[in-house]
Amino acid sequence: MSIDIRQIDPAIIARGKEFFQSISGEAPSIFNKGWWTGKVMDWSMKNEDFKVQMFRFVDVLPYLNTSESLSRHIEEYFAGEDSNIPDVLKWGATKTKFGGGLVAKVLNKTIRSNIEGMARQFIIGQEGKEAVKGIRKLRKDGFAFVLDLLGEATVSEEESTAYMEGYLDVLGAIHKECDKWQGLDGKDLDWGHAPKVNVAVKPSAFYSQSKPVDVEGTAKGMMERIEPVYRKVMDMNGFMCIDMEQLKYKEATIELYKMLRTKYRDYPHLGIVFQAYLKETEKDVRDFIEWAREENLPVSIRLVKGAYWDYETVLAKQNAWPVPVWTRKPESDICYEKVSKIILENHDICHFACASHNIRSIAAVMEMAKALNVPEEQYEFQVLYGMAEPVRKGLKNVAKRVRLYCPYGELIPGMAYLVRRLLENTANESFLKQTFADEADMDRLLENPEETLQRQLAEKPCRTHAGRPPVQALNGEIPAFSNFPPADFTIQAEREAYPEAIAQWRTKLNAQYPLFINGQEVTTDDTLDSYNPADPSEIIGTICQAGKPEIDDALTGAKAAYLDWRDVSPKKRAQYLLDAADWCKKNIHKISALQVLEVGKQWDQAQADVAEAIDFLEYYAREMIRLGEPKRMGVAPGEDSRYFYQGKGIAAVIAPWNFPFAISVGMVSAAIVAGCPVIYKPSGLSSVVGWMLTEMFRAADLPAGVFNYTPGRGSVIGDYIVEHPDVSLIAFTGSMEVGLRIQQKAAVVQPGQEQCKKVIAEMGGKNAVIIDDDADLDEAVLGVLYSAFGFQGQKCSACSRAIVLDSIYDRFIHRLREAAQSIKLGPSEDPSNYMGPVVDKAAAKNVLRYAKIAAEEGNIVVQREADDKYKINDACYVPLTIVDGITPEHRIAQEEVFGPVLAVMKAKDMDEALAWANSTRFALTGAIYSRSPKHLERASREFRVGNLYLNKPSVGALVERHAFGGFKMSGVGSKSGGPDYLLQFMDPRLVCENTMRRGFAPISEDDDWVE
Amino acid sequence: MSIDIRQIDPAIIARGKEFFQSISGEAPSIFNKGWWTGKVMDWSMKNEDFKVQMFRFVDVLPYLNTSESLSRHIEEYFAGEDSNIPDVLKWGATKTKFGGGLVAKVLNKTIRSNIEGMARQFIIGQEGKEAVKGIRKLRKDGFAFVLDLLGEATVSEEESTAYMEGYLDVLGAIHKECDKWQGLDGKDLDWGHAPKVNVAVKPSAFYSQSKPVDVEGTAKGMMERIEPVYRKVMDMNGFMCIDMEQLKYKEATIELYKMLRTKYRDYPHLGIVFQAYLKETEKDVRDFIEWAREENLPVSIRLVKGAYWDYETVLAKQNAWPVPVWTRKPESDICYEKVSKIILENHDICHFACASHNIRSIAAVMEMAKALNVPEEQYEFQVLYGMAEPVRKGLKNVAKRVRLYCPYGELIPGMAYLVRRLLENTANESFLKQTFADEADMDRLLENPEETLQRQLAEKPCRTHAGRPPVQALNGEIPAFSNFPPADFTIQAEREAYPEAIAQWRTKLNAQYPLFINGQEVTTDDTLDSYNPADPSEIIGTICQAGKPEIDDALTGAKAAYLDWRDVSPKKRAQYLLDAADWCKKNIHKISALQVLEVGKQWDQAQADVAEAIDFLEYYAREMIRLGEPKRMGVAPGEDSRYFYQGKGIAAVIAPWNFPFAISVGMVSAAIVAGCPVIYKPSGLSSVVGWMLTEMFRAADLPAGVFNYTPGRGSVIGDYIVEHPDVSLIAFTGSMEVGLRIQQKAAVVQPGQEQCKKVIAEMGGKNAVIIDDDADLDEAVLGVLYSAFGFQGQKCSACSRAIVLDSIYDRFIHRLREAAQSIKLGPSEDPSNYMGPVVDKAAAKNVLRYAKIAAEEGNIVVQREADDKYKINDACYVPLTIVDGITPEHRIAQEEVFGPVLAVMKAKDMDEALAWANSTRFALTGAIYSRSPKHLERASREFRVGNLYLNKPSVGALVERHAFGGFKMSGVGSKSGGPDYLLQFMDPRLVCENTMRRGFAPISEDDDWVE
Repeated sequence: MSIDIRQIDPAIIARGKEFFQSISGEAPSIFNKGWWTGKVMDWSMKNEDFKVQMFRFVDVLPYLNTSESLSRHIEEYFAGEDSNIPDVLKWGATKTKFGGGLVAKVLNKTIRSNIEGMARQFIIGQEGKEAVKGIRKLRKDGFAFVLDLLGEATVSEEESTAYMEGYLDVLGAIHKECDKWQGLDGKDLDWGHAPKVNVAVKPSAFYSQSKPVDVEGTAKGMMERIEPVYRKVMDMNGFMCIDMEQLKYKEATIELYKMLRTKYRDYPHLGIVFQAYLKETEKDVRDFIEWAREENLPVSIRLVKGAYWDYETVLAKQNAWPVPVWTRKPESDICYEKVSKIILENHDICHFACASHNIRSIAAVMEMAKALNVPEEQYEFQVLYGMAEPVRKGLKNVAKRVRLYCPYGELIPGMAYLVRRLLENTANESFLKQTFADEADMDRLLENPEETLQRQLAEKPCRTHAGRPPVQALNGEIPAFSNFPPADFTIQAEREAYPEAIAQWRTKLNAQYPLFINGQEVTTDDTLDSYNPADPSEIIGTICQAGKPEIDDALTGAKAAYLDWRDVSPKKRAQYLLDAADWCKKNIHKISALQVLEVGKQWDQAQADVAEAIDFLEYYAREMIRLGEPKRMGVAPGEDSRYFYQGKGIAAVIAPWNFPFAISVGMVSAAIVAGCPVIYKPSGLSSVVGWMLTEMFRAADLPAGVFNYTPGRGSVIGDYIVEHPDVSLIAFTGSMEVGLRIQQKAAVVQPGQEQCKKVIAEMGGKNAVIIDDDADLDEAVLGVLYSAFGFQGQKCSACSRAIVLDSIYDRFIHRLREAAQSIKLGPSEDPSNYMGPVVDKAAAKNVLRYAKIAAEEGNIVVQREADDKYKINDACYVPLTIVDGITPEHRIAQEEVFGPVLAVMKAKDMDEALAWANSTRFALTGAIYSRSPKHLERASREFRVGNLYLNKPSVGALVERHAFGGFKMSGVGSKSGGPDYLLQFMDPRLVCENTMRRGFAPISEDDDWVE
Repeated sequence: MSIDIRQIDPAIIARGKEFFQSISGEAPSIFNKGWWTGKVMDWSMKNEDFKVQMFRFVDVLPYLNTSESLSRHIEEYFAGEDSNIPDVLKWGATKTKFGGGLVAKVLNKTIRSNIEGMARQFIIGQEGKEAVKGIRKLRKDGFAFVLDLLGEATVSEEESTAYMEGYLDVLGAIHKECDKWQGLDGKDLDWGHAPKVNVAVKPSAFYSQSKPVDVEGTAKGMMERIEPVYRKVMDMNGFMCIDMEQLKYKEATIELYKMLRTKYRDYPHLGIVFQAYLKETEKDVRDFIEWAREENLPVSIRLVKGAYWDYETVLAKQNAWPVPVWTRKPESDICYEKVSKIILENHDICHFACASHNIRSIAAVMEMAKALNVPEEQYEFQVLYGMAEPVRKGLKNVAKRVRLYCPYGELIPGMAYLVRRLLENTANESFLKQTFADEADMDRLLENPEETLQRQLAEKPCRTHAGRPPVQALNGEIPAFSNFPPADFTIQAEREAYPEAIAQWRTKLNAQYPLFINGQEVTTDDTLDSYNPADPSEIIGTICQAGKPEIDDALTGAKAAYLDWRDVSPKKRAQYLLDAADWCKKNIHKISALQVLEVGKQWDQAQADVAEAIDFLEYYAREMIRLGEPKRMGVAPGEDSRYFYQGKGIAAVIAPWNFPFAISVGMVSAAIVAGCPVIYKPSGLSSVVGWMLTEMFRAADLPAGVFNYTPGRGSVIGDYIVEHPDVSLIAFTGSMEVGLRIQQKAAVVQPGQEQCKKVIAEMGGKNAVIIDDDADLDEAVLGVLYSAFGFQGQKCSACSRAIVLDSIYDRFIHRLREAAQSIKLGPSEDPSNYMGPVVDKAAAKNVLRYAKIAAEEGNIVVQREADDKYKINDACYVPLTIVDGITPEHRIAQEEVFGPVLAVMKAKDMDEALAWANSTRFALTGAIYSRSPKHLERASREFRVGNLYLNKPSVGALVERHAFGGFKMSGVGSKSGGPDYLLQFMDPRLVCENTMRRGFAPISEDDDWVE
């Protein structure tokens, strides 16, 4: 049986009106301006800047343990530009002026208690006893409950376990008395059919290692700790609902539900949540119900709008993924009704919890249920504790079966929940805000969302994106640069591509790779093997090694190619890069999978490397088009002066193995697009990846001689290339020692040399992450972990020093230790592993040496090895090492390790932290986790590194957005992927024409002329 | 007696209408579309691009001596983009299609003869006999004449003499028969009072060394050759009028008139021209008449509108001088009437020749003369030969006394005249065009120009300049950058400032100059004298010399200063430069005069040096403001990524003596504004000029330690500075040898060194000027001369090779030789001298060495010494040397001389010329003189130097407009005064903030957002 919503629309509207009348004159307490919360909400809705500051302040508040700290933050957040703003904050304090001494103390106390009070409005209790008491009261008022434990951000298995135990504890507390509770409107059960005890669980919190690339492992991990909770619930004849969180956990969550539901087939009280804001939800729900029918298992769905809209949208935009959520509010409302209908139509097998504050949606559900004759026990209504009191009252009047969603737990995680609620209530499109704060027209509020949508589309048919103008390329207009999206492992095909591509490479082991010189493949007798660091017996390729004669040949070809290439139009040169980028996009899994094998990159790290290469190609192509347009200088009439660029000559590119494709492509493509033919020497450890550049440029049909692939032994050809008079430019990425040697050798002018050599060198780093005492540790711990141990710490941007402020030190180090203990170590090929082997045996030896130094200089906090089963054929595993008790004098605080060794340093204050951060020879990357606006601003200025990240990891630079490179001994030259990078490959030229002849000069539009 | 033009306006208009009626239905032949000229004029008025090409083609035509050359130019000028355009050119040729073989030959012939025919329309004859015949015919038709000899562009005294002889010749030819001529409307005299023979002379042509800075010398030089002509005229009882040319000759021309008129007081038939388009003319005429009254000498004035409007305007705009001409046509017309009135009011002493084609102006003169009762013999009318036939006819009908201005002479100079006439007739505001081509309304044409002006102002009250947006500086808005104006020596005060400022310095000879370290003056025992190269006995100053301890002190101060200075806001740093610029503007003569004495710069060269320094300060200030604004990278929501710059550290600036102030200020100010404190080592030869930087930065109140003045001996402190670990950047301008040494030393990282050193080095040049076979030799000869010998060739941009195409070689070398023989050599202090002494005795020795090599390798064309009287006290004079027979193998074609030695090379074609031009180690500047669009385009691409000038000298680069610097062995780094220069002093930094907290990110306007 099916219905048409359009047909019952009049009934829905009538029902809605009745609903409104039944609550006429009432308003949710949150909008009550007589109270502090209402005032703050009101201010926030009127003043976007205040809202941001307020919500951020709410977020940081639980970390502000001292009066000094609280004072400072109030000052920093609110006393900035508009000294009137804090008035609202002062509500309830004495009327004296804001400022110093005792008054400040009183004020601080007031503000803190106001905000805590606001939080308590939404949270039923901070600990078990309080929660049980709250629940009891609710039930007395006739409401059922569903209990949710705050604190879902777990960074370690210890925290996940604690979270599980929290549930078991509160369930235990309830268990003690719930048997005494009378059912609502019934005896043992609520309303005659529903379990009295009802909990909601956030599955990701139960398994700290959840990740989308590993759906099965994640579901299993979640299962492991949720199962005991579920068993306890079953023990109590209760109901458990699995909440839906961010999209990235969706698949694992559904999988978890299925595992639990089929394992306990006979116990029906298990629910799951779907989110109407997701575009995929309609399909997901249909699939889910179909599964239930196949399995013949009754199921339960709670349908919500979804609480992560901002997050999902920002994340998608940041990653250039399609936005997964509806971007217009009525679209979500339409979806809500549609999906409700689907569920109600399947009421024979699916119980429905309608969780919405939107009276139109509620009315629609009521009318649909009525039209479909859905029995009462098959649907109920849910609203959030502390919100929308009139709605819950109205619901209770009409539908009786109203359940309140009751968060419970400590204030720190509670604040995160509070912010979500505040956001929800202040969003322009919030139904509650429209209804109770804006007092919107009832007809509008109740109209079919299809109509609302049509009206909105008519009013604003195209959405204005902050677009950057397109670029005129050789073959017409191309869009402005944007970064290639990172792998989205929520997509099954993405996950399946890797094992396939890796298997494909395994069919080509031991292949021989020639040189590529002046458009020809050239073989040599001297060869070098490249092996899989996770299993050195696997030879990824045997690579021919260039000697001096081959370098001479390559230079001869490049020299000849230069004569034409420098004059090929910038747009045409750019087109070769765009074509190369297309090839990369088509071959992204092939190139990524190769890196998994050849250098031990994790899937996502490998794909990010190729994405970065694509970005370099796309960005430099556009940059060259921009720079290629001769620029008129001055506005004098009678002369036409043009400034333009010419490629410097032959570029030697000496590339590293750690970003074997991206950095190679970056340096090579910059040189080529700037007009400089290239001889490219990849690292011996990643020469098969290097060979991919040959395939790429062949596919792009680059003229012979412009790109030459000449791997070779540094001892044989290194200095020879650097000192060769025909080389005009050396682009190098690697260690400081080699970089300095290159600079020194290149500065000596050789006989026959036409041009002073330019050296662009990206060298080392000894990057610090500062943890301020108000840092959000949920993010900081994971950020440090990832910055230090992603790709085994083998990044010049890797964090190798964590500088932690004294007062937060213990909390941080504890969580970091546990987090580090929780991650999985093993072959990068298995995506569940966080850390794999280092790149080769020499690297392993070097890391071990530093691990020893670390142990000598400080106290080992964590030292973990991969399982012995992985240590086959001399595989290159090294321990993950965290050492503390380090100060700047220690070697481990000064020397670049280039491996998974993290030094932790305890600083007494921000002054010391900044001084230490800047205390090395390097100045590459850095990060700070802080929620102090002043400290962030100060770090922006005084944490002097090339790339500084605020509340972000120190790694993962994206082309353009995080144009990359440092100074001091970290590098010579301008940031790669930045607006000044290509300039380094070119010499500016200027041609000035005197356009006056016989006293007559044509006047052009941009001349400074008299009329 | 005086009149009010407004009162007689009705009479003027009535008179004008009558005039129009009298010529009703007639039109000037030039607008007759039945003829080729009319067609071309018509096309030109409709199509601005064609007009430019056509006029340029007319200009070059006389140089196209071969059919091949003619064909090629027709193709290049016209067959470019619109293949329809040449139709008009083909008029009169066979109707076959344009292109190859015989047809092309016919076509070429047609085009050439069409254009020559057009020229003949305006020129009465190409040689004496023809001219006399033409005059005879005119007189027969009842018109008087004034004869003008074409060819006023004289580059040497030989040419000036030839020009004088041309006049004597034609006067001789006339003399033979003029006695036979009957007077027009009279017997012996025309109209009963006017001499039958009348000539106009362009005074600058009689003296090739005319220049505004030397009014007296110029007037004398003109006098020397005009006097014989005048005597011949007197001998024939004729009249001579001194034409007025470009503004720069105005003062000397008036002076010349006065000299002649007073020398021959009793002979009244001498006239002078004033130009109504000059804003100063009303005052000039009043002064002139006052002078006549004082001297009690009858005078004669021809009043014209003025023929150099485009030139004067472009020149003023290029030099940022006030535009000296009226910029709205009616303003000139008003001035014409006003000045006419003044002259007519003084008819008792001043005869008036009204030279205008404007019927309103003519009518006004007629009515004013009538109202003032001016006797007929005191005014006459003049029109140009070949133009405005209806006007001359109308005039003859009414006023009888009409004189035609008749140019006569060869086609080459004739073409220049033709272009002026074509321009005049196609200008939108031309009265003739409006009257006869546009058929404008008669009332409008005759209205009082005051009314026309009011109407135009009402229609378009503000003139739209091609303005660049202003810049937000520290103290508010400042205008966009424009170059500081060069000295305008037409202004008397400018001329008088030098002797005064030089005298002032002479009171300070032998003064001692201290070091300036960390805000303190420091003296040392070791000192060095700086002397005047024109008289080494004059000690300009005794300069303390820094040793290593002083350098250490300076570095200590700079290092301390750096900590704050790098964080001073870019706008504030920029303000110090703007303040410094203000100080320079106030002290420009002081600093310039010092250079005249200390390094032997000519006045204009010295002032240009200070102007360039001002430009550097103003430009870099604005550049830093531009670059100082952190740039948002990407548009991702949830993150705020900012790219900005930080000064690298301490900069050592090692400066040369040849642009002792400009280059020093350029390098120093770039470093300082970028955030780098400076230790500045000036050249020992110009350390007193260097001290001016101290005065400047003190005046600007720069914080202590940011600028340190540390002159010293290179042998003592040179390497010490370069190798010092505290120096992060070396900015050097000087020789290649020193530059390469610096680079090599700087590339070695020293213990304690924080940063890899950056070297910015401007080194040598061996610059070529190519003379194409169609080059305008009037400009090319002077351009080469100036490029090679300006400031004695002591510029890295100086031309030291002239590469001349075979087919123009003889003409070029002859004119160059003569030009070089004509210039004056002697102390730079005397502004009439073109070339002075080189900078010191060592330089003189070096130049002599190369002069000897030149003599050995080629054939000396010119070798001229300054007069012995200047060679006092071992003064540093060296001969001006031009050598030819040079090919690229010669040392004199490869090695930088840095003195007045020019090698001339004969190339067989453009291929060879370009190959030779590019055949040295250097790539700094170059120039080409050509009127072949293809060759100019090819040179733009293939003449690979930093600064290439088309039809301009290779010297005189201006900040921004000609951002300066080369590549190959000419330099390392980006162009000074260019958009990439400051980047070299800074490291880019990037700060990226994750603005998302708890899933909530404030969205900014430029985010890529969904709505």
